[in-house]
Amino acid sequence: MRRRNLAVVLGAVAAHGPLSRADVAGRVGLTRAAVSSLVDELIGRGAVTEAAATVRGRVGRPGRALTVCDEGPAGLGLEIGVTHLGACVTDLRGEPRIWRRVERPNAGRPAGRVLAEAAALGAEVEAEAEALGLSVAGRLLAVPGVVPNRPGGLVERAPNLGWSGVRLADHWPDPDTVPEPENEANLGALAEYWNAGRSEETFVHVSAETGIGAALVIDGRLFRGARGFAGELGHLPVRPDGPDCACGARGCLEQYAGEAAVLREAGLPPHGSPAGGPTGTGPGDAVALLAVRAAAGHAPTLRALDRAGRALGLALTSAVDLIDPDGLVLGGAYAELADWLLPSVRAELAARVTVRPWAPEALRPSVLGRRGPLLGAALTTVRRIMADPTLLPAG
Amino acid sequence: MRRRNLAVVLGAVAAHGPLSRADVAGRVGLTRAAVSSLVDELIGRGAVTEAAATVRGRVGRPGRALTVCDEGPAGLGLEIGVTHLGACVTDLRGEPRIWRRVERPNAGRPAGRVLAEAAALGAEVEAEAEALGLSVAGRLLAVPGVVPNRPGGLVERAPNLGWSGVRLADHWPDPDTVPEPENEANLGALAEYWNAGRSEETFVHVSAETGIGAALVIDGRLFRGARGFAGELGHLPVRPDGPDCACGARGCLEQYAGEAAVLREAGLPPHGSPAGGPTGTGPGDAVALLAVRAAAGHAPTLRALDRAGRALGLALTSAVDLIDPDGLVLGGAYAELADWLLPSVRAELAARVTVRPWAPEALRPSVLGRRGPLLGAALTTVRRIMADPTLLPAG
Repeated sequence: MRRRNLAVVLGAVAAHGPLSRADVAGRVGLTRAAVSSLVDELIGRGAVTEAAATVRGRVGRPGRALTVCDEGPAGLGLEIGVTHLGACVTDLRGEPRIWRRVERPNAGRPAGRVLAEAAALGAEVEAEAEALGLSVAGRLLAVPGVVPNRPGGLVERAPNLGWSGVRLADHWPDPDTVPEPENEANLGALAEYWNAGRSEETFVHVSAETGIGAALVIDGRLFRGARGFAGELGHLPVRPDGPDCACGARGCLEQYAGEAAVLREAGLPPHGSPAGGPTGTGPGDAVALLAVRAAAGHAPTLRALDRAGRALGLALTSAVDLIDPDGLVLGGAYAELADWLLPSVRAELAARVTVRPWAPEALRPSVLGRRGPLLGAALTTVRRIMADPTLLPAG
Repeated sequence: MRRRNLAVVLGAVAAHGPLSRADVAGRVGLTRAAVSSLVDELIGRGAVTEAAATVRGRVGRPGRALTVCDEGPAGLGLEIGVTHLGACVTDLRGEPRIWRRVERPNAGRPAGRVLAEAAALGAEVEAEAEALGLSVAGRLLAVPGVVPNRPGGLVERAPNLGWSGVRLADHWPDPDTVPEPENEANLGALAEYWNAGRSEETFVHVSAETGIGAALVIDGRLFRGARGFAGELGHLPVRPDGPDCACGARGCLEQYAGEAAVLREAGLPPHGSPAGGPTGTGPGDAVALLAVRAAAGHAPTLRALDRAGRALGLALTSAVDLIDPDGLVLGGAYAELADWLLPSVRAELAARVTVRPWAPEALRPSVLGRRGPLLGAALTTVRRIMADPTLLPAG
């Protein structure tokens, strides 16, 4: 009960601060004495600070201003992408305070090497955070792969990295900082949901980096499936007799709307190939290149994106028919290409979602785009603390 | 709290009865005095009976045997199918006590006429139930159509009946017996789930009568989607350039695995056509006909079912990829054709579900088949009473 009340008080300060203790009591419907005791505990745990200055509250006399700490507890998000590493620290207010992205060709390299580099980046960023007065209270790692529901820090398969059965603890140099892995599409969807601030929405969030993933948020909660494999949109059969896919099947969505397929159709060299970037190892930003070419009216690029959009529309028709979401969100790299993808995705949905009402605007580009998964990884810790402040050590 | 304890005691008697009061107390971890008071209330509400004879319990002295009533409160299920009406009464033990199915060509007839006939059948069956000492405590109507999440007794669309925006209360002759509508695929899935007695399973239940529907059971609970339209499997695009569908799209699953498509491919006249049955109005049982022909090795029938199975396998690949269920169940008419459908559905799933482990046995035929929706409609009332015995009037 006290745990719940701590969360309620912290939530009120986060949503409406600065507030005096009397304001908080008025908002949450607890006695002033109870609120004061809860506030003292939150201050002790480093979640809330009380300013020297007073605020004029809505009720009672002016009191000293309570706000959520911008120092102290923080969330660390790490990301291993096919061509980059990322790190982000958010404070307890949810503000990103450090953001790092380094290009790094991770595909096909030994998992231990990649994880050691991610750990080094994490340690660097944690030191930076400390200099800002922040102390990392939880660590998540976004990966482009399947993370089973059972605990244990296992990445079951990350085909675009070439990983299979990688347990993070087996490779992470410092046992005290091993992060919890999570599928990047899931984290991107959660970040989008938290950022939009809609209540209890049911939506499908599609994200694309090298592969295509999706996440299902049902009534505001991530739906992971019976084993953690839900949202595998990239291998929906959109044309049963279509081209062979690396997964072993045929005509999968990735053969039309995956990065490699779009680059090929657009007449561009595959991402990560020597021709992909000036150094031969650090490939250029294929998504930015596609966007620039599309904006310039480059016909093969426009055709490739139209083809990708139609295939996405087919796959999303299945998602709408099966799940009946409030909305669909195009995230990850798709968000940056939305200007050219939205028309064909929407056209396909309009032609095929016929049995129920469906508004074109129910499909929207994400606001966060490729930044979603990393931000979601950092915010997960913050969200957990906000829901249960006793996760923080007592002062 | 008392409501919850009433449900716990009733549940113990249902699962393990006959039990003495002392047995119940031992099982549920409440005092004998508390249990006795709860049992008295359950007897008063007509949910439990206490026999004159004693049972030798596991604890204490022999006591009088408590069992769930096979008289008194009952659930009425009604069903409007495209070619039939159905009614079923189950007692509080979940036993079906009355089962009626009458052939009736309902497609395209005025909704008011069809509903009046369903009401007449319901009244007949309620009178029969009364003669058995049963008293109907709740009424559900299974319909082959979309029932929105919001209350109000509305069937938003039932394309195979030709219904659009039909509110049951506007047509039902007796305002005291208006049933609650529910999608038949949903009720079939719930009946299958309750019947199998698996705990917290996540599965997709496909059912077919004239159309194709599906229902999603997530952790043992029906998932209805944001607006109540989830599980619209019949219009998943399995071949984007395939034949036109009545829904306005192309290449929908129903064009391959719907009843009309299968009959056409098998060289049989469409269901409901004059040639479909000896009377010209009461068509024969197309499903039974297909099964008999397939069993006799009739090549066009076998080809039609193989084609249907392959298309079903494509659609179910999308369902597995998106939802990651523990299992898939072929229900409704498909259950009766499972011998000929399973091989091709399983082959397609094996070839296309590649990114995660998938066992062929995870696809199984339903046990209840075409009986599921009607049974589910009747059992819904029983389940509600078992979860909250205070729904029954106090004695």
